[in-house]
Amino acid sequence: MSLIVQKFGGTSVGDVERILNVARRVVATKEAGHRVAVVVSAMAGETNHLVDLARAIGGDAPDPREYDALVSTGEQKTIALLSMAIQKLGHKAQSFTGAQMGMRTDRSYTRARIERIDAERLHTVLNQGMIAVLAGFQGVDDEGNITTLGRGGSDTSAVAVAAALQADVCEIYTDVDGVYTCDPRVVPAARKVHRLSYDEMLEMASLGAKVLQIRSVKFAKRYGVPIHVRSSFSDVEGTWVTREEDVMEQLVVSGVTFNRSEAKINIRGVKDVPGVAAELFTPLSDAGVVVDMIIQNVGQDGTTDMTFTVPESDFVRAMTLTKEVANKLGAAEVLGNDSIVKVSVVGLGMKDHAGVAARMFRCLAKEGINLQLISTSEIKISVVVDAKYCELAVRALHAEFCEDGAAEPSVEN
Amino acid sequence: MSLIVQKFGGTSVGDVERILNVARRVVATKEAGHRVAVVVSAMAGETNHLVDLARAIGGDAPDPREYDALVSTGEQKTIALLSMAIQKLGHKAQSFTGAQMGMRTDRSYTRARIERIDAERLHTVLNQGMIAVLAGFQGVDDEGNITTLGRGGSDTSAVAVAAALQADVCEIYTDVDGVYTCDPRVVPAARKVHRLSYDEMLEMASLGAKVLQIRSVKFAKRYGVPIHVRSSFSDVEGTWVTREEDVMEQLVVSGVTFNRSEAKINIRGVKDVPGVAAELFTPLSDAGVVVDMIIQNVGQDGTTDMTFTVPESDFVRAMTLTKEVANKLGAAEVLGNDSIVKVSVVGLGMKDHAGVAARMFRCLAKEGINLQLISTSEIKISVVVDAKYCELAVRALHAEFCEDGAAEPSVEN
Repeated sequence: MSLIVQKFGGTSVGDVERILNVARRVVATKEAGHRVAVVVSAMAGETNHLVDLARAIGGDAPDPREYDALVSTGEQKTIALLSMAIQKLGHKAQSFTGAQMGMRTDRSYTRARIERIDAERLHTVLNQGMIAVLAGFQGVDDEGNITTLGRGGSDTSAVAVAAALQADVCEIYTDVDGVYTCDPRVVPAARKVHRLSYDEMLEMASLGAKVLQIRSVKFAKRYGVPIHVRSSFSDVEGTWVTREEDVMEQLVVSGVTFNRSEAKINIRGVKDVPGVAAELFTPLSDAGVVVDMIIQNVGQDGTTDMTFTVPESDFVRAMTLTKEVANKLGAAEVLGNDSIVKVSVVGLGMKDHAGVAARMFRCLAKEGINLQLISTSEIKISVVVDAKYCELAVRALHAEFCEDGAAEPSVEN
Repeated sequence: MSLIVQKFGGTSVGDVERILNVARRVVATKEAGHRVAVVVSAMAGETNHLVDLARAIGGDAPDPREYDALVSTGEQKTIALLSMAIQKLGHKAQSFTGAQMGMRTDRSYTRARIERIDAERLHTVLNQGMIAVLAGFQGVDDEGNITTLGRGGSDTSAVAVAAALQADVCEIYTDVDGVYTCDPRVVPAARKVHRLSYDEMLEMASLGAKVLQIRSVKFAKRYGVPIHVRSSFSDVEGTWVTREEDVMEQLVVSGVTFNRSEAKINIRGVKDVPGVAAELFTPLSDAGVVVDMIIQNVGQDGTTDMTFTVPESDFVRAMTLTKEVANKLGAAEVLGNDSIVKVSVVGLGMKDHAGVAARMFRCLAKEGINLQLISTSEIKISVVVDAKYCELAVRALHAEFCEDGAAEPSVEN
């Protein structure tokens, strides 16, 4: 008898009919002989409705404590309704708010961090054969104030509960049936990946595959919780995200991802002395601009060029700040370009197979695509190219690495 | 510096604009130098919406624990929004769910009884100069399960909080500006009563003046909490409901009330032996029929007639049950009439002034109104008359007892 934690998002519980569907799914798992805890989000649209009310009254900066008290009602509504639906199908179920399930967090309202789960009561209920229905996204601090976990909170709740209960698996139900080698809208030949390591999933997630929230994957990695990403609408196996040593089939490249919403800033002719990078990036960091890739080349005349990428939405602000710093540093010029795309290949196999980078660059060169930036990590290679090449680059790389027979490293390695 | 508990119902917090109005009202009280705790209901329409969802999923009998978890989100929404609104006006405020305010109840879901209030945290917050914004209608049992108090729960919450905090007054805001001597729609000459005792208010409330929930008045009486019923829309003094000894102006009659939604059942020719009444009323009670007036007359032939009233909505069921019992008892016949009205005069002064009943009967006789049933208590006289006489009877009694100079007992007493 396994202990299974299942998580359903807002779309899956968006109306009465869908809640009944989720109940059927949960009950089927229970009837297959497992102990089941279900984590749910607010019904689709509910959170927006609550946020609108908060803004209508509290303006752009409603009090965070009250904001959390308000939006947490969304999940509370879902857990009560889902419990009723499960009972309607003849099974015992009990709902738990964040406070009731012992989800203890710090007091960082709207983006609280989970500190621990006092799971005694959950254990008791599960051992009595009940289905526990848990509010995702929310917790409670040591004084009983309601907190929310912020973006991706429900996935994180589910993984944290799975860790606390030492569940056999945390099933994340979505509207796709797993993680794909690439976005099927861009690459029709994209195929489902059966197993991924946490690190691969992290790279995939941060690069734009929006199936799982990054934070929940980090949590799963820390506690070794196996995640099964699967479809709300079918019974087929989805994608397992597990520890590296459990990923048998180590593909050279597990997926090709892209991110169109970055912009590039290039600062040229900076005197190459210690402290320059700090001088540049401290004001950006203070302004809350998250810098992604950073590349520095030292020239021959004692000056250096630095290039970095920022979210497109921060581009204008980042340009202004960079120009201010450039003036102070006596830099030659600052160039910006928001018409770029970052394309990456991700794969555990890269660790063992040399030459993946070379193969990637050759593939893009063959299509006549010029590389503006290159950045590599142990299991990822990213390049920045002109935005107009996005689809071409992604399809070429997918054909090279992810389609028939491509899992094998190419002979020249 | 007084401590004031204010309670606003669902209509008063029905939308964003109204919530802001309530906030202004609360802040005005605070700025007048008082400590303030506010108890609120769910926004008008919210509870119905939640109940509809519960029915759509759980049918007619959704699980009571989950039902309470669901509907309690309504008040939680309001407290967060009202706290934001108060903060927007520059005052410190903090919201409290039932659990957070220490409202401990038993586990009778949907109609829980308050056991105690652990008001330490409330005291702390009020002493820090904050406005405490409390969810009415809800509590929590000793295991942290969410409960609701059922009908009239928010008034009761407010009074209980006022009792626990030893507040100087519990202000109940409504859409009328106090308790009237009669329904102004029936008697245009009806006037506001300035002070009433708890007992008078109980008689008025149970007879159809729907300003205050009976349960909250009982609670106020037990703990001696002064209630001030007043208008959400104006600043005028409303009606104070207080201990009898605080009601200086003891009117002979404080008000005239009527109830059109009762029906009368008459069982005739029952053998007059001990146990007959028990035999009749036990099945009614088992069926959940609340019997109001009961009158018994012993005839000369060793048989008895019994007449009683039941809610009109239970009339058919009650007739069926009564006929079954009548058969068993060998009664002569059972007659029913749902075209009646109960008209009552209520007043503390009756205790000291004899002759009120006689004066009432004379007044009705002068209008040619026949009395079908009479029932009296220490501070109330009720008669049942044909429904068609309702307005006539009520206006005549109001003119007799409640209009100019009528506060004085008539000379003949």
